[in-house]
Amino acid sequence: MTEAGSALPFHIEARLPGTGARAGVIDTPHGPIRTPAFIPVGTKATVKAVLPEAMAAVGAQAVLANAYHLYLQPGADIVDEAGGLGAFMNWPGPTMTDSGGFQVMSLGVGFKKVLAMDTEVRSDDVIAEGKDRLARVDEDGVTFTSHLDGSRHRFTPEVAMQVQHRIGADIIFAFDELTTLLNTRRYQEESVARTYRWAQRCVAEHARLTRERRHRPYQGLYGVVQGAQYEDLRREAARGLASLDLDGFGIGGAIDKSRLEQIVRWVVAELPEDRPRHLLGIGEPDDLFAGVVAGADTFDCVAASRVARNASAYHPTGRFNVVTAANRRSFEPLDPACDCYTCGRYTRAYLHHLFKAKEMLAATLVTIHNERFIIRLVERIRDSVVAGDFAAFREDFLGRYYSA
Amino acid sequence: MTEAGSALPFHIEARLPGTGARAGVIDTPHGPIRTPAFIPVGTKATVKAVLPEAMAAVGAQAVLANAYHLYLQPGADIVDEAGGLGAFMNWPGPTMTDSGGFQVMSLGVGFKKVLAMDTEVRSDDVIAEGKDRLARVDEDGVTFTSHLDGSRHRFTPEVAMQVQHRIGADIIFAFDELTTLLNTRRYQEESVARTYRWAQRCVAEHARLTRERRHRPYQGLYGVVQGAQYEDLRREAARGLASLDLDGFGIGGAIDKSRLEQIVRWVVAELPEDRPRHLLGIGEPDDLFAGVVAGADTFDCVAASRVARNASAYHPTGRFNVVTAANRRSFEPLDPACDCYTCGRYTRAYLHHLFKAKEMLAATLVTIHNERFIIRLVERIRDSVVAGDFAAFREDFLGRYYSA
Repeated sequence: MTEAGSALPFHIEARLPGTGARAGVIDTPHGPIRTPAFIPVGTKATVKAVLPEAMAAVGAQAVLANAYHLYLQPGADIVDEAGGLGAFMNWPGPTMTDSGGFQVMSLGVGFKKVLAMDTEVRSDDVIAEGKDRLARVDEDGVTFTSHLDGSRHRFTPEVAMQVQHRIGADIIFAFDELTTLLNTRRYQEESVARTYRWAQRCVAEHARLTRERRHRPYQGLYGVVQGAQYEDLRREAARGLASLDLDGFGIGGAIDKSRLEQIVRWVVAELPEDRPRHLLGIGEPDDLFAGVVAGADTFDCVAASRVARNASAYHPTGRFNVVTAANRRSFEPLDPACDCYTCGRYTRAYLHHLFKAKEMLAATLVTIHNERFIIRLVERIRDSVVAGDFAAFREDFLGRYYSA
Repeated sequence: MTEAGSALPFHIEARLPGTGARAGVIDTPHGPIRTPAFIPVGTKATVKAVLPEAMAAVGAQAVLANAYHLYLQPGADIVDEAGGLGAFMNWPGPTMTDSGGFQVMSLGVGFKKVLAMDTEVRSDDVIAEGKDRLARVDEDGVTFTSHLDGSRHRFTPEVAMQVQHRIGADIIFAFDELTTLLNTRRYQEESVARTYRWAQRCVAEHARLTRERRHRPYQGLYGVVQGAQYEDLRREAARGLASLDLDGFGIGGAIDKSRLEQIVRWVVAELPEDRPRHLLGIGEPDDLFAGVVAGADTFDCVAASRVARNASAYHPTGRFNVVTAANRRSFEPLDPACDCYTCGRYTRAYLHHLFKAKEMLAATLVTIHNERFIIRLVERIRDSVVAGDFAAFREDFLGRYYSA
């Protein structure tokens, strides 16, 4: 946020009485994002298997890429020379990059093994510093090992800002530390305090880079609220970030699905009303309703795309597997009520065939449908916030979706 | 061809004096094919990695699928119930199916091993009946083993017609026997005679099925001229098929690249002028010029698509590998003179990145470019036939293409 507070303008158009839900518009240099909005993920500067024009056609307003992945391949310098993320990937609309904090710590060799360990093991020595984990956190930053080639790298808050300024997305995220539900309370406390100090450094470096690159479109900086399942830590983290010169806020970290709405409520209560809130990595239908009612404005999630590649299609009565015997000779679309490109032109029988034949177009067509399903759901959630019938829509939609 | 000879109308619009080259139009029930034409291959009812609308945008006039593959997966009955190949795959234009003769014999378990054997081994026992080869030819047809699940199947000329009528393409091919350059002269003679008898049976079964399914659009039947590298066999095969009630002719089988033009000349000399000729599985630039000048009208080839998936892009100065160090930071398109979707929107640097990141969109974008390159080349060949400057264009184009 610049001195005037209008560098990344956010206007609230409607609120749902008695809840945190609101409908608004974030005005980025590459166009508006009408919120609540679901932002499809294009981790490596491509929404897997789908051309940008097809993503625009399903109603995607923005795309979120990942700074860690693009730093390793092709390198932030290449994206910068290409004219930034949007120009590089042929996406003319708004873009976002996650800082890579999550990936730096979760993709280091061996970390998955730690995450999968018995939940009774709560030794931070194992989790944060064990020999299996090749990302090592210290006060200044994180040293990590590339999951691609084993090379060693170091991210600090300053490096994370430099990388994201080179990638050039409209909205970027402060560098935060990933913890898991396995970490001890004591470690979570330390981590929240460290993430706050890192956010301060991100704000300073962001301001310096914004001045240095002032011929470029302004990039909005979001801080990331951590604190796991602890109310006091979540509130403390949110209060700390709220005091900084940030354009918006991400809500991240390990969140138990059943406590999602509550956690977002705690955080939102401490955040300024006039800035947007992004719920990181959330995209299942029930979680979207929970996030919106608690006050989140934008969401991103790889699920719509990832499950599509595994032949799982969203449907008003729940997700289903396209590759079942019943679909072999079904000449119906995935969902007759869906307005997407795929449902208007292809049968389940054809999609069943493409998956059986291991044809790439299977992933393309079901991803288009799934992204449209989630984007349309959030469009309808937005409409229901404006119209005031959110509660009825939530009950009706989720009642059908989870009926099976 | 029906009694009037106009079931698959073919009009010749221009001829190149002193050569076999001509420009014409084949009028199929799903629209015209302006010849010479390159027909992209969609083996399993999809041009790999590319949506049908994108194929139309690169100028594809028709798509050629494969009856053997579709018979095994999803089954010809499914394609039939879907309304035929075009409706099944969302391709509103003309379609063709190869009979599957080639695939029945080449994809049988173990045959590749035989093909790769020392060329000194010329025993038909090994090639046609060895225990390694799981396709067995007899007078009535071929018994073969699915490359998918090892199940046993039998194709006869009648079955091949029934399968292709169910698939419902506008142009279908008679069932022919594949031989290789390894077969003996004696076996080639037997094979040509057998392929002629099979073509007679195909014509009869095609006529019966056409009557039985006369509410459906007419499907044109092409015979396939075999005879390997032998002039007398090629001419005998062509003469035999020319005497049958066929709508057009395929030229198939093992063809040594250096003798392609000559072989097509032999065949064309024996075929009627007023019916189209399709050169099967040919699509490299020099071969396209050779085929056209010798009198071929249409071509199909998987190369444009297959090499794209291996990061090889067509260019006026020859094919090149996208994934070289030089392209890592090249912000030029694949070919600045190309009018395709990919070249108008993406840099080599981005495509380099997509291949390195193993992203599916890499195959999509380079396939679009490569198909456009070959289709545009044949469009320009057609123009040069009409304008009368074919020879100059051939010399100019191939001089640049093979200069490196």
